[in-house]
This record gives sequence, C-alpha cells and structure tokens, in this order.
Amino acid sequence: MQLDDHYFMRKALVEAEAAFAMDEVPVGAVVVINQQIIARAHNLTERLKDVTAHAEMQAITSAANFLGGKYLKGCTLYVTLEPCVMCMGALYWSQLDRIVFGAFDEKRGYQSKGLQPHPKTLVTGGVMEAETRDLLQAFFQKKR
Amino acid sequence: MQLDDHYFMRKALVEAEAAFAMDEVPVGAVVVINQQIIARAHNLTERLKDVTAHAEMQAITSAANFLGGKYLKGCTLYVTLEPCVMCMGALYWSQLDRIVFGAFDEKRGYQSKGLQPHPKTLVTGGVMEAETRDLLQAFFQKKR
Repeated sequence: MQLDDHYFMRKALVEAEAAFAMDEVPVGAVVVINQQIIARAHNLTERLKDVTAHAEMQAITSAANFLGGKYLKGCTLYVTLEPCVMCMGALYWSQLDRIVFGAFDEKRGYQSKGLQPHPKTLVTGGVMEAETRDLLQAFFQKKR
Repeated sequence: MQLDDHYFMRKALVEAEAAFAMDEVPVGAVVVINQQIIARAHNLTERLKDVTAHAEMQAITSAANFLGGKYLKGCTLYVTLEPCVMCMGALYWSQLDRIVFGAFDEKRGYQSKGLQPHPKTLVTGGVMEAETRDLLQAFFQKKR
C-alpha cells in the first residue's frame, strides 16, 4: 500500500497534539524516506527554554543522525505549520526532496518574507489545513 | 576597563580558528552580557553531520541555557561571518540586543535575502572584516 501525504501529515499532527498536551505551541513534524518515518519531533521551545527547538529543527537533526549524513536527499518533511525563516533556512541547507506543510502562517511563515526553498526541494502547503490550523487556534484561545 | 567589539570579535575568531583546525568551515561566535562571555561556539556541521550546527545556533542554545530563559535580552552575539537565513531566523526569535559580525557573506548572508533583524536588535557588520574573511579564504583555498 502506498501511504500518502495525508497519512504522514496525520503522524505529524499526533506530534503536534503531544506538544499541545505539554503546553507548547502545537507544531509537529515527521521526516519520511521510502515510505518510512525516520524522525518525529514536536515543538519544545518552552520545555527546553530554547528558541531553536522548533519541531522542524529537531526533526532535521534527528533524521541526519539516522541517515549518518547531513543532507536529507530523498527525504520529505511533513510539518503541521508553514515553516518560519529559521526552519526554512535549515531546510534549505538540508537539501531534502520535499516539504509538506499543513496550516499557512501568513505572519511568521517563510513565504511572507519572500524566501524561496532550495531549487531541489518541492513544497506542498495546505495538507490537512483545517485540522492543523484548528489545533493551533485551540491552543491560542486557551492561552488568552 | 570597558571591553570593546574588537576584543569580543577576537574571541569569536579564536573559536573560528578552532573550527579551522577541525576542518570545519571556520566560523566562530560568542555571546556576551554585561561584558561577560556566557557562550562560545564554532561551526560543527561536519563533525556532527548536522546542517543546523552553525556557530550561532549553538551559541544561542548555550546562552539560553546559561541564562535559564529563551530570550537573550541584554545579550550581544559576536560572529565572524554574516549570519545565514537559518541563523538570522533564530536570532530574530531570541530578541537579543545586538549582533556584531565580521566578514560579509554576499551570497549566503541574510542581507542578500532581504531579511531584517528583530526591531529590538541592532546589527553592526564588518568588525575585523579582513581577519575574519582571510581565515575563511584560507580554508576554501586549502579545500581546492
């Protein structure tokens, strides 16, 4: 059976839900190669008191550890929210094949800053957009 | 005695030289608060096989650990090369007071991508520009 973007985004959403349960901004990510998940991560900026601990950053490091090399060729990163400038910069360096994200981040997302992905990287946005956005909105409503 | 930008950039350059000795792209960084160095780091992307292991990223994490909070208010980061998109994104999130860099990176630096620092962050570029650039050039000449 060929697993699709929806399947892997659901796995990223499970990670985001784990972040929510820890009172972290609920963003989750997985890295996939050949239909296999090789990294799972969620935002940990509060727990680690570290602005660099976004889901994508941890997923990149974790996937590179798994592969034993710094380039993530052949990999797809699924993340529940459009990457920020920092994460898009890291994803650029990693030269992965694809980025698939859920909700759009019109204020903080890389697209609003005019950034482009690596020429080797294809981006698909808006996969499970409603579900990923609803979780973020629920979090920020709880915080108010 | 008031220690100046030149003094702290020299400390960042010592870090860059340590990277050079390890066959890493020679970029070094220190984070300073109240005239005290609270973090030192250099590029480790090859050793760690991790594209996120730039000097600035490690310095941000290390300084936040030292301070016990994720925001680097009151801090200045000295780095021997103009930050890339990833690092500038991380520095944006950290809301530090100042960024001082050495050599300009016209191809990969954040300025070439049209990025702006956080409104609370002052940037000074070109401090010890010749020395920091010379070390990078020596590295890339050795690699050819």
